[in-house]
Amino acid sequence: MKLLSEINSPEDLRKLSENQLPDLARELRRFIIDVVSVKEGHLGASLGVIELTIALHYVFNTPEDRLIWDVGHQAYGHKILTGRRDQFDSIRQKEGLSGFPKRDESIFDAFGTGHASTSISALLGMALAARLSGAPNREHIAVIGDASIAGGMAFEALNHAGVAEANLLVILNDNAIGIDPSVGALKTFLNRKKQGMPGEGNLFESLNLNYSGPVDGHDLPAVLQELKRLKGKPGPRLLHLITTKGKGLRQAEENQVTYHAPGRFDKTTGELIRGEKDKEIGPKYQDIFGHTLVALAAQNPKIVGITPAMPTGSSMKFMMDAFPDRAFDVGIAEQHAVTLAAGMACEGLIPYCAIYSTFLQRGYDQVIHDVALQNLPVIFCLDRAGLVGKDGATHHGVFDIAYLRCIPNITVMAPMNGVELRNMLYTAQREARGPMAIRYPRGYSDHPDWEHPFETIPLGKARKLKSGNRIAILSFGTLGQEVTRALDRVDTPEAFGHFDFRFAKPLDTDMLKEIASRYERIVTLEDGCLSGGFGSAVLEYISDKGYAIPVSRLGIAEDFISHGSPQELYREQGLDTEGLIRSLNGF
Amino acid sequence: MKLLSEINSPEDLRKLSENQLPDLARELRRFIIDVVSVKEGHLGASLGVIELTIALHYVFNTPEDRLIWDVGHQAYGHKILTGRRDQFDSIRQKEGLSGFPKRDESIFDAFGTGHASTSISALLGMALAARLSGAPNREHIAVIGDASIAGGMAFEALNHAGVAEANLLVILNDNAIGIDPSVGALKTFLNRKKQGMPGEGNLFESLNLNYSGPVDGHDLPAVLQELKRLKGKPGPRLLHLITTKGKGLRQAEENQVTYHAPGRFDKTTGELIRGEKDKEIGPKYQDIFGHTLVALAAQNPKIVGITPAMPTGSSMKFMMDAFPDRAFDVGIAEQHAVTLAAGMACEGLIPYCAIYSTFLQRGYDQVIHDVALQNLPVIFCLDRAGLVGKDGATHHGVFDIAYLRCIPNITVMAPMNGVELRNMLYTAQREARGPMAIRYPRGYSDHPDWEHPFETIPLGKARKLKSGNRIAILSFGTLGQEVTRALDRVDTPEAFGHFDFRFAKPLDTDMLKEIASRYERIVTLEDGCLSGGFGSAVLEYISDKGYAIPVSRLGIAEDFISHGSPQELYREQGLDTEGLIRSLNGF
Repeated sequence: MKLLSEINSPEDLRKLSENQLPDLARELRRFIIDVVSVKEGHLGASLGVIELTIALHYVFNTPEDRLIWDVGHQAYGHKILTGRRDQFDSIRQKEGLSGFPKRDESIFDAFGTGHASTSISALLGMALAARLSGAPNREHIAVIGDASIAGGMAFEALNHAGVAEANLLVILNDNAIGIDPSVGALKTFLNRKKQGMPGEGNLFESLNLNYSGPVDGHDLPAVLQELKRLKGKPGPRLLHLITTKGKGLRQAEENQVTYHAPGRFDKTTGELIRGEKDKEIGPKYQDIFGHTLVALAAQNPKIVGITPAMPTGSSMKFMMDAFPDRAFDVGIAEQHAVTLAAGMACEGLIPYCAIYSTFLQRGYDQVIHDVALQNLPVIFCLDRAGLVGKDGATHHGVFDIAYLRCIPNITVMAPMNGVELRNMLYTAQREARGPMAIRYPRGYSDHPDWEHPFETIPLGKARKLKSGNRIAILSFGTLGQEVTRALDRVDTPEAFGHFDFRFAKPLDTDMLKEIASRYERIVTLEDGCLSGGFGSAVLEYISDKGYAIPVSRLGIAEDFISHGSPQELYREQGLDTEGLIRSLNGF
Repeated sequence: MKLLSEINSPEDLRKLSENQLPDLARELRRFIIDVVSVKEGHLGASLGVIELTIALHYVFNTPEDRLIWDVGHQAYGHKILTGRRDQFDSIRQKEGLSGFPKRDESIFDAFGTGHASTSISALLGMALAARLSGAPNREHIAVIGDASIAGGMAFEALNHAGVAEANLLVILNDNAIGIDPSVGALKTFLNRKKQGMPGEGNLFESLNLNYSGPVDGHDLPAVLQELKRLKGKPGPRLLHLITTKGKGLRQAEENQVTYHAPGRFDKTTGELIRGEKDKEIGPKYQDIFGHTLVALAAQNPKIVGITPAMPTGSSMKFMMDAFPDRAFDVGIAEQHAVTLAAGMACEGLIPYCAIYSTFLQRGYDQVIHDVALQNLPVIFCLDRAGLVGKDGATHHGVFDIAYLRCIPNITVMAPMNGVELRNMLYTAQREARGPMAIRYPRGYSDHPDWEHPFETIPLGKARKLKSGNRIAILSFGTLGQEVTRALDRVDTPEAFGHFDFRFAKPLDTDMLKEIASRYERIVTLEDGCLSGGFGSAVLEYISDKGYAIPVSRLGIAEDFISHGSPQELYREQGLDTEGLIRSLNGF
């Protein structure tokens, strides 16, 4: 790491000669592989933009020139070259570097990212600001992948950029893959451009962008030359760059989906290192979802599946493999995914629309306006609800209970365990007369024995797990398991009743009436924000009915929660077993 | 109305000969003008698609073939031809026809619309469903304007449509205007197509759509011929149709913005009929916003304005006229509008982003992920909060308090009157250290004397308007005026204290403590949904602190509220003066 060890900022980088840069690229690639192989994290995306990263900081005057990385999981090289090399092995760890660009981490992170397709809008805002603020020559560069540029808001930004007088360079990093392979007509268009199809119309030129490329993104001299040519040109420009995700590590190039974020691997051979799985643990909730959906779809021909660009992450892949005509990956297009489902539901189909909780924020209007208002039976499978862990603040799924609960017509439920998830998925297609949301966390479920015969879960009905004589604990979702564990160890177990509430909406008001009459206090528990969440629903009911029983609400504090392991984060929130024991002993 | 009076369904229409259709077009146009001139409603958009409407129902086999009108305010002719002629004079009235297509109003309304850019997604969902359900020859047609097709979700849908094997005909109704003139690079592209620029790339062909046109949308034989040619062709097609908004009424053609929804007018001359304005009433809240923003921008060079396609409706037009370099109409692109503002705020500007409450649902993820997470000082001016009236369920702004309140860092405020709005707008630019939302209703304010010298409103502080000895009324927003009126007439005025709470977030906890110690009951009041709204915020605080004071929450009931005048709708909710008197006397 002869060169890299001397680079503490892009200024140091700019002191190198151009012919030293390929060596630096090798070192940077090696450094990322070495660290990520042990510390885990996103791998393939950063390996694919090593040359681009070096070239950008070499040619442009960062941080004075503004550089935004769309999504941002490809910015590891950028972090290393901008003064964070020595902290890099803390990436995605609690108190360590974020896995994404973050404004308060570095002045070189011009805009915080995490969700896709935001970069061009933010960049255009900065470019227009530069013009107004007397910095008309400042350069503004966004790096955005071909999967992300297909997101609607990127198109909105391009449509504006094409008529704005602003210095803007959009680098389209075309590697034909997001987390899963890219889809859609734009992808086929880009492929035709790569093949140099003559006489082809050009979507970007139609939008007034000065298009150049395609350029081989791993040919460092070519990239440098093209960036220099584009630097200082006025107006909106788009450079089409062809790269290979995972470049430089054979397995990562060959298995791009797996090596997007491979976990630990051998830094020399590239082979994955499989951790020993606890035999007591069940499959991932995602896999329970995927396998169950396939089983249900085999029985019910009305079922279809929709995922916006997460076939692997959500395990919708299972349905796509089993019923390729009935499962749709629509790309990074949550808005479209939701309204596509609405259209299908109008025609009698039952769409299972699997979207991460944090990404359904993108389709919020569509949930209200296209699905709930028309009371259509779309089943939202809200994956990665709660604190997701190392992806951090941009990715936690903590607002959905609050933002869904205010919508009329919708049912909001959460399983306490894998068996319940399976039965909720089963129930949804039997009972759906309107929209339903089923929220469940990322990661492994509790028990390997989950494939029980299907059982219908009565809509809006809670279940009593344990009686008590003083305090009723009403849990919503998988944190109910922590309650079970905590109740084994509290000072006075007999004081506590435990109810798996299952539904945040509609509430089980019969059960609440009974609880209000028999207990001294209600404690609610959820892995969502406290403002307006499940606990508030209970509180509203208790207050509206004039019951005097006090309600204590446990959940995620009012803050954007940073990254760390889920265990660390839940502990910090006092929502792990120990924290619950402390809270419960205090009542 | 010789022909029109005989048409009770498209089947009747199809019995006419083609050469009778121009006469029918004249009658239909006349009928719409006659009714809308008296009953009010959207005018220009429907006049622009008269020929298209007739041709579509003539050529296609509706309702078996599915027809979706994007936004839907252009569907008056469609409603009249599909069995609703005799109810048409009830349009937008309470219990009357909706101003938009609505599934439970007619089988011919294949998909309910209201918000822009949803049609292609829904249509594609239906087309894919048809293929799965054994109706592969069913036709699916969406009519979408050039302003709406620029919305990001429409692009997401086109990107999917281009690779889906589905029968889909998108009719791009290019009239170069939404409510205000269209903007953006797509518009300039479409203009070049109209001028028949040779060798021009074609954005739609880049997306694998079979593009045809442009065709003169008022040339009925030409439209018929082209629709017949396109009918039954497989795969995704896009027909570019050129129309004139307001076609057939001179003033509507010449003043397209005014005649979008002109209010009453003389059906012969087309001249507007100005109602006599109550001299006691103040200007529209929108105009207070617009004039105040111009005044603030004159003092503070950091201020910029952003509107997604509503310069006239929001009165951002005033800023665009006064400071053309500092005010931006980005088109129907709420997502982009929010993140553009975030980018500007990163560079030290203070963006006032004026978005209707119902449309900010489109930018929800951007508010969370791009603005609030980075704690950027973007000021959201949430226009048309509360029940908006005749636009109905798709347009009410009733969810925003709940969906914003759960977001960390954001301040949520609402003025009780025009003077307060002005001072909140002033305060925002002085105090903004993070995101702020100011929500205010559609329509006229309370008092003509609003242009007082600016005063800073202390952040998070309520104001006491009246003391009482038993019940504290905490109002949020302009409904506070109803409280003032109601308190003049309740049985025991001395019982009631009244607090204009101003902030739903952060709450004035000092004031709440005092109230909890001095009163027997709290009554909260808001023009927003009860689940998770302002009242819930108060309830959460009271509960968290362990106060025993009961809280009664008044607001919008858990339902999608239909159309009607705001007065009728608030009365129905018990939130007018009489309703409040009844409620307050009951405590």
